[in-house]
Amino acid sequence: MEKIRVGVMGATGYAGQQLTALLARHPGVDIAYLSSNTYAGKNFDQVYPQYRNLIGNKLISKHEAMERMDDVDLIYTALPSGAVFEVAEAAVRSDKRLIDLSADFRLEDSAAYEFWYKREHEAFGLMDQVAYGLPELGRERIKEARIIANPGCYCTAGILAVAPLLKHDDLIDPFSVIIDAKSGITGAGRKAEISLLLAEAGDSVKAYNIASHRHTPEIEQELSKAYGDKLNITFTPHLMPMKRGILATCYINTRTFCSDDDIYEIYGRFYSNSDFVRVRRELVETRYVNYTNFCDISIKVDIRARRIIVTSALDNLIKGAAGQAVQNMNIMFGFDETAGLSGQMPLVP
Amino acid sequence: MEKIRVGVMGATGYAGQQLTALLARHPGVDIAYLSSNTYAGKNFDQVYPQYRNLIGNKLISKHEAMERMDDVDLIYTALPSGAVFEVAEAAVRSDKRLIDLSADFRLEDSAAYEFWYKREHEAFGLMDQVAYGLPELGRERIKEARIIANPGCYCTAGILAVAPLLKHDDLIDPFSVIIDAKSGITGAGRKAEISLLLAEAGDSVKAYNIASHRHTPEIEQELSKAYGDKLNITFTPHLMPMKRGILATCYINTRTFCSDDDIYEIYGRFYSNSDFVRVRRELVETRYVNYTNFCDISIKVDIRARRIIVTSALDNLIKGAAGQAVQNMNIMFGFDETAGLSGQMPLVP
Amino acid sequence: MEKIRVGVMGATGYAGQQLTALLARHPGVDIAYLSSNTYAGKNFDQVYPQYRNLIGNKLISKHEAMERMDDVDLIYTALPSGAVFEVAEAAVRSDKRLIDLSADFRLEDSAAYEFWYKREHEAFGLMDQVAYGLPELGRERIKEARIIANPGCYCTAGILAVAPLLKHDDLIDPFSVIIDAKSGITGAGRKAEISLLLAEAGDSVKAYNIASHRHTPEIEQELSKAYGDKLNITFTPHLMPMKRGILATCYINTRTFCSDDDIYEIYGRFYSNSDFVRVRRELVETRYVNYTNFCDISIKVDIRARRIIVTSALDNLIKGAAGQAVQNMNIMFGFDETAGLSGQMPLVP
Amino acid sequence: MEKIRVGVMGATGYAGQQLTALLARHPGVDIAYLSSNTYAGKNFDQVYPQYRNLIGNKLISKHEAMERMDDVDLIYTALPSGAVFEVAEAAVRSDKRLIDLSADFRLEDSAAYEFWYKREHEAFGLMDQVAYGLPELGRERIKEARIIANPGCYCTAGILAVAPLLKHDDLIDPFSVIIDAKSGITGAGRKAEISLLLAEAGDSVKAYNIASHRHTPEIEQELSKAYGDKLNITFTPHLMPMKRGILATCYINTRTFCSDDDIYEIYGRFYSNSDFVRVRRELVETRYVNYTNFCDISIKVDIRARRIIVTSALDNLIKGAAGQAVQNMNIMFGFDETAGLSGQMPLVP
Repeated sequence: MEKIRVGVMGATGYAGQQLTALLARHPGVDIAYLSSNTYAGKNFDQVYPQYRNLIGNKLISKHEAMERMDDVDLIYTALPSGAVFEVAEAAVRSDKRLIDLSADFRLEDSAAYEFWYKREHEAFGLMDQVAYGLPELGRERIKEARIIANPGCYCTAGILAVAPLLKHDDLIDPFSVIIDAKSGITGAGRKAEISLLLAEAGDSVKAYNIASHRHTPEIEQELSKAYGDKLNITFTPHLMPMKRGILATCYINTRTFCSDDDIYEIYGRFYSNSDFVRVRRELVETRYVNYTNFCDISIKVDIRARRIIVTSALDNLIKGAAGQAVQNMNIMFGFDETAGLSGQMPLVP
Repeated sequence: MEKIRVGVMGATGYAGQQLTALLARHPGVDIAYLSSNTYAGKNFDQVYPQYRNLIGNKLISKHEAMERMDDVDLIYTALPSGAVFEVAEAAVRSDKRLIDLSADFRLEDSAAYEFWYKREHEAFGLMDQVAYGLPELGRERIKEARIIANPGCYCTAGILAVAPLLKHDDLIDPFSVIIDAKSGITGAGRKAEISLLLAEAGDSVKAYNIASHRHTPEIEQELSKAYGDKLNITFTPHLMPMKRGILATCYINTRTFCSDDDIYEIYGRFYSNSDFVRVRRELVETRYVNYTNFCDISIKVDIRARRIIVTSALDNLIKGAAGQAVQNMNIMFGFDETAGLSGQMPLVP
Repeated sequence: MEKIRVGVMGATGYAGQQLTALLARHPGVDIAYLSSNTYAGKNFDQVYPQYRNLIGNKLISKHEAMERMDDVDLIYTALPSGAVFEVAEAAVRSDKRLIDLSADFRLEDSAAYEFWYKREHEAFGLMDQVAYGLPELGRERIKEARIIANPGCYCTAGILAVAPLLKHDDLIDPFSVIIDAKSGITGAGRKAEISLLLAEAGDSVKAYNIASHRHTPEIEQELSKAYGDKLNITFTPHLMPMKRGILATCYINTRTFCSDDDIYEIYGRFYSNSDFVRVRRELVETRYVNYTNFCDISIKVDIRARRIIVTSALDNLIKGAAGQAVQNMNIMFGFDETAGLSGQMPLVP
Repeated sequence: MEKIRVGVMGATGYAGQQLTALLARHPGVDIAYLSSNTYAGKNFDQVYPQYRNLIGNKLISKHEAMERMDDVDLIYTALPSGAVFEVAEAAVRSDKRLIDLSADFRLEDSAAYEFWYKREHEAFGLMDQVAYGLPELGRERIKEARIIANPGCYCTAGILAVAPLLKHDDLIDPFSVIIDAKSGITGAGRKAEISLLLAEAGDSVKAYNIASHRHTPEIEQELSKAYGDKLNITFTPHLMPMKRGILATCYINTRTFCSDDDIYEIYGRFYSNSDFVRVRRELVETRYVNYTNFCDISIKVDIRARRIIVTSALDNLIKGAAGQAVQNMNIMFGFDETAGLSGQMPLVP
């Protein structure tokens, strides 16, 4: 396997760190550089001591990373939303490919971006070179795009759970979708905030950003595409007292009687070519997918109340971020789609 | 305050233990006996060493407890469902009052009991002497009933969250109710099961008993009463990696535009006489109610998707079980409704 | 009971918050004011929403609190070390009593204070009016002192565990004491630091400040007094993935054969008049003391290796801070020593 | 790499499961069979649903596994202590090699085995074909032995932490060793016990089996070998509210002044050829080694109290069990010592 050279900008946030760890053992990758504005000058394993003897790269600044754009075939950006526009412009000018883990290129409607992210979109001209990086919903565009908008963690869980049903509007009401999602606390990022302390967030649950979370328009955009017309959904995120993992419990009204088997057949067919989606009969749990790139899905029809309840589980930092970003790279560069992603066994009891 | 004498049957399950602790410091109560079939012959503080020097009662058998029925004014049963029928028959014969923390007298329809609990109802003749013990929805019946069916933990969280809306079917669609509830693991009881081990249930979330949990008919019964006609709802319980607390996220479709303020006004009025319900503007968290008898409620209208999202939080073992059982006793025996329940400050950071 | 008026300076740190909650239901106390430099102007229940409807006091600044010194009989300071000197000077001038939860008056040797705390002691002239506030080792001085130096959390656990042995230097070697202590994360204070996040500190343990923790000289000072001569000890603190509680495992070499019973007799006698120390035969666990003012102690002689292993457990925020501060107030003002401290039942399963 | 065939007996305990997961991706291994008496007849991924699509082997009974001894080059036993004797006899008869994760062949003194394990040693005749499988203390015997006694988890942490010092009895007192160890709850095995429930063991710490834990004689045996004479040590195990990881805090008295650097030099030299021991300057944390085969060690001299404090951290299920068992296999069969063990990146934040 001929190796490609990649650079990671924003290597010391949680997603960037996981990405770096996955890339470090990917058989087709050489890491050219890692950048971190907060920790530039330190070594990666000083910030994350678990990587001692494993990943010793010196962290460079964002500025330096941009100057070294020619050293790489692919740039990963795990930067805050709003910080990727200039990198993307430069990457396209240099004819480099970019996988962006932020939200900067996820929304195809610039007004929506501005409404939800409270800032202008500074590189909207690039949108026609962008593919939304959810491989299970379409690998073709990903192969050819210059820029991949790597999906949000909640979005991946919600979209994979609901999308298979939307073409079946004889069975279900596409306008009834509710996604109630529960996330581990790494989803909030590596921020020194009182509310994220073990002493505060431990042993407690809460909903937050009800009816106002930024992943809402992203989920709506992709589910609207899957349906074929504009949908609004309700999305409620919750914070769990655990480190990682997302469970999405999704509710869709049925229009007619259907059995568990009917729905399982739809999902089985929809994901028959997707190694990383496991449609399963027993109920999903986040511990079964943590540290892996799997998204597990199970289904139950509530016949009495006439609803389908789909639960999906994934690791917010792997399939919800870094793992999916590697999966997208594999597709873009012709590697096996599972390259570098199958070694991480789910060792958790 | 003249004291009443109470006996607790089933004092060593989680709910029974909490109840015992609350009764031990209630100014109007003398504990006549504690029973436990599993631990009969031991002292209470041998089973729960935290009560050393505090609660030393010797545990007696269920059989012995029934023989000592005349020693008490009130019997609490924190026994498994199905085990209370004979106790209730005996209590009524002896003209004693009973507060039952099991599900044996919660469903007013014997067929529903048999369907959901897979056993016959052996004391259905007593049902006209039973009141459903949710004080916030009606204290009058509780005052006079011989038997109180103390509500299920999920039911308390779900009913208190949704009931205030149901008379407003100009505003909302009563048939659209979905309750997505998240519970700490004590809700599963004190059972030696692999799936409840820290090594298994820690750091992970899952849904369980989807569309089939036994609290469903109980919630439907009470919400149907509040609405005035038969409702079906969807109820999904989830297990959280924490010891205690329930968060219920409830979804109700609106029929017309309404603002947060409109809905807050309805809830404020509904609970204006209820000390233990705190309707609050900021979002609820289970840590704010744990170890107390409060149920906190907050509201958000999802204008885009035309739904109201109500979140409620309570301690599954206090307001969801033992605390509510004390509150019911207070009402039955003319104590102040908060007696014995206000001392437990929420010390949790 | 005639009430005293108290003010709390630093009411919004973890210890200050717990103290406020305990005082709010103490039958002999009126809270005159609560101060918080960080949150001055807000209400207490805005900072800690669990106290809604319970503690609504408006928080004032430190400056304002000092101006209102004449309103109170007793001032509590739960301020950072170094910030209490001026308060203490003013309190003594105004003939008010002070219970200080910081370390500012714990060390009787000003050089030691300067060495360990890296700052000058600015009020050393007050030291003869200070009592070290560990009631189990001497209530007399506490009764009369103007200023109480409320002990550190680790110190309380370590000193109570070891002190009873030190007069028995025929049995044990006083110079062999090792204290290996494990603390919940509230012990680190309410600080927005990456290392205290649930995502970092959860599910992991570490030692920290080995051979250099500031509680070392404090433990040595009190154990030296108990022994009658200057001792050095080894003290190692550890951080646990839990909210509260300290377990101290203490090692002392024996000089001669002794049995568990021999040692239990010594401890039983030593603590025979101390309601808050439970010397117990079964091994201690932090969950048995959390939310209470108890310190549990158990003993095991390692006959093969000729050591005594004493384990003690307490709640770092109650017996290790706020509860002990209330206990000291009770002694100073002639209340029952357990007043305001017995209501908080250990409800934890 | 020519593959060897291995069988795992006891594949569904925590250690057996981890071992199976490691073997499943080891480049030099074919899994011939997995046995489990509890779950015989089920598939491995029915017991551990996280392995769906990864490890689907049907579990066979212990009896069947013994009949298929000729199918394999190597047998792993992750059975309860006492259950391995007959397997070992059969393996030696069949000229197969055996790596035993139980304690059955760890103690070289049959009287000690009988005293600590309360049963007779039924295969003591095999002891001269056994090597204690701690590679860092001697790889030669491991290479040639027929049977490997894979060390206990606590033993690995304690022995690796203390052994390097024992040849230096000019510097330290070998008779002063105290090991205070803190373990995640998987160390207790996969047992349905009340005390291991999340509701009980969560958010709490305790010491257990003080001065009587079965790993004590094993640690003493190996440290005595390292020293050259018989030592007694004190070992205290503690249970932490976390899934995995051991931190051992070890205390050794110094006889003379020595600095951190002096001791670091000794350890650096001792482990210079050991890839899996990371001697490090910053303090160790269990999260830095979890899911890996590393043992991290750091050192601090307590000059005031004249002791060395060594802390070591490892994953009780990997370096403390399954990973070490793979490492031993690698040595026995001429694979690279890190084969199959380096892929598991420590992804934990």
